[in-house]
Amino acid sequence: MLILGIDPGLRHTGWGLVQKDQSRLVFVSAGLINADSSLALAERLAEIYESLVRVIDTFHPQEAAIEETFVNKNPNSTLKLGQARGVALLAPAMRHISVSEYTPNQIKKMVVGAGHADKNQVDMMVRKLLPTVPDNIPADSSDALSIALCHCFMRGAV
Amino acid sequence: MLILGIDPGLRHTGWGLVQKDQSRLVFVSAGLINADSSLALAERLAEIYESLVRVIDTFHPQEAAIEETFVNKNPNSTLKLGQARGVALLAPAMRHISVSEYTPNQIKKMVVGAGHADKNQVDMMVRKLLPTVPDNIPADSSDALSIALCHCFMRGAV
Repeated sequence: MLILGIDPGLRHTGWGLVQKDQSRLVFVSAGLINADSSLALAERLAEIYESLVRVIDTFHPQEAAIEETFVNKNPNSTLKLGQARGVALLAPAMRHISVSEYTPNQIKKMVVGAGHADKNQVDMMVRKLLPTVPDNIPADSSDALSIALCHCFMRGAV
Repeated sequence: MLILGIDPGLRHTGWGLVQKDQSRLVFVSAGLINADSSLALAERLAEIYESLVRVIDTFHPQEAAIEETFVNKNPNSTLKLGQARGVALLAPAMRHISVSEYTPNQIKKMVVGAGHADKNQVDMMVRKLLPTVPDNIPADSSDALSIALCHCFMRGAV
């Protein structure tokens, strides 16, 4: 079973693919969508959406997972994040792929074992669980892999 | 020129179409998308997106306009609105239709003449400017028509 993890953002949207075969977890691919900030908002959203659809049509994941967005104290940031998240949720839904949502604490708990782990610990565990992840992948792609891993663990039996 | 106005929301998304021929404004159609609240979030967003794409593919508007969302004090509401707004912006963008954004105050000012007009005044002016709007259209559809009218006025020469 191939799982797509998505870490959405208006500037950077990370994605990562993990293959789960019974107890085996294998890194498949990961990437970062950098929407051109000089474009109009609607076109930036189209860039995020089209890039994610391209990933889905290339790799054919069976299920997707996304972070339940941290609600920022700045309402404008929350709105921006919401817009990016909307199109990130839409991409798998339009391909009839179910999307599970996890809170940051759930992800940390499932991947590191502690709900208040810091970013570095999560990244370290991603690399420990998926040893073939390249050294230089961006932080948002590693985050997306941690979301995919969380979904693998939540589905049980890893 | 046919203008599509969109008033996005996760529960109710209003849309309205206004034909602008030089100084003449004519009501074309309006509707309301009620995304099924029993569905998963991603599927609700897909319902909003697919419904808007259907409107666009039926009427072929040349330009679209959307309200620059009022930033709510409740971050969860802002996030929900952001997600609906993301897919509402995406629908015209995917059909290569430009989307203009207007603040609530701009819309009120252009349609009623006062930035702090109340909802009823805006609705009354929509019906005055577009006398063939049916009596019983939902408030969110009337709002969408006011957004389309604002765009007509902002494009000048009405």
